[in-house]
Amino acid sequence: MTETKRSTKRKIVFATGNRHKLHEVESILKDYPIIIEHRNIKGPEIQSDDLDEIAKTSVAWTLKKCGCPSFVEDAGLFVTVLRGFPGTFSSYAYNTIGNKGLLKLLDGVKNRRAVFKSTIAYCSSRQKPICFTGEIRGNISLKIRGVNGFGFDPIFEPDDVRDKTFGELEDEEKNRYSHRALAVRLFAEWLLTYGVK
Amino acid sequence: MTETKRSTKRKIVFATGNRHKLHEVESILKDYPIIIEHRNIKGPEIQSDDLDEIAKTSVAWTLKKCGCPSFVEDAGLFVTVLRGFPGTFSSYAYNTIGNKGLLKLLDGVKNRRAVFKSTIAYCSSRQKPICFTGEIRGNISLKIRGVNGFGFDPIFEPDDVRDKTFGELEDEEKNRYSHRALAVRLFAEWLLTYGVK
Repeated sequence: MTETKRSTKRKIVFATGNRHKLHEVESILKDYPIIIEHRNIKGPEIQSDDLDEIAKTSVAWTLKKCGCPSFVEDAGLFVTVLRGFPGTFSSYAYNTIGNKGLLKLLDGVKNRRAVFKSTIAYCSSRQKPICFTGEIRGNISLKIRGVNGFGFDPIFEPDDVRDKTFGELEDEEKNRYSHRALAVRLFAEWLLTYGVK
Repeated sequence: MTETKRSTKRKIVFATGNRHKLHEVESILKDYPIIIEHRNIKGPEIQSDDLDEIAKTSVAWTLKKCGCPSFVEDAGLFVTVLRGFPGTFSSYAYNTIGNKGLLKLLDGVKNRRAVFKSTIAYCSSRQKPICFTGEIRGNISLKIRGVNGFGFDPIFEPDDVRDKTFGELEDEEKNRYSHRALAVRLFAEWLLTYGVK
């Protein structure tokens, strides 16, 4: 990629109703010549166990609504021993049973393996929805620890950062490892190389 | 309603991928001059905490696919102390954490109140989606009991039938009380009175 291409600032809509998510994505993208126009909207999400499918449907709706290149982000925590629960329903599970509920489900359970997945879906009038994914493996902690991040962050210990949950990491550190950061960076690199101006 | 109107048999599509649900709905409808044409299809379900919204979207898709008057049924178990969980995500929760998981979430919890809700959404080319709902209140049992029914039936004790779970009731008895039976009967009465031929 030429310097000229990279230095052209791209403006795209990020549709989300989650201010924590917005803050994280903005922090990660600050290293790239990409300007986010935040819209506090989110299209209907379908029920599916496939993050990509949910995000693609959602971003197609956003494009229709906004009429300009847009992206959405969808994430989930997949706990191995719970057959992937709460997975693509993580937001609903967090708002109902919360961290305490998930810990209770794993009470006395030795296998605490889990994976946090993030999918970015991008769409423009010239481009069908395309997805970029990030994953990070780790364990569900025994207790809620830390107040940073959001959602299930305080009970997820990523493999890369032993003995700390996402909730115990500062934003900058979380953004070095997180599933969301991986997906956002893949997307940003792609956008600057192949995306529309 | 005249006898002539009631005796005209109506044929409508019931779209579901759940054979237990099909069996129950067929059993309840056998008392009505309505013929079900089963289609093993189900449109995309949206993520929502509103059963009606989910069922309406789903049946609109079914009508488009089948081109004839259709209905779908969506149900959920809403546990009070869990802020409505698993609610509209009951099917996913059952397939992942199951009855055991739900009992574990309520381990040591005194308030075991819950409500089973069912929504039928019907749609024809002359009729926007219309919903019929049934609800039954009860308690979550302490243990899994009974092998009848499906889903969370073996851990739900309806108020009307003390000391028995839905899983311990014969089909006929369950169909006297159940949320699904209430919704189906409302729908059938409406269809025979106002529905298209």
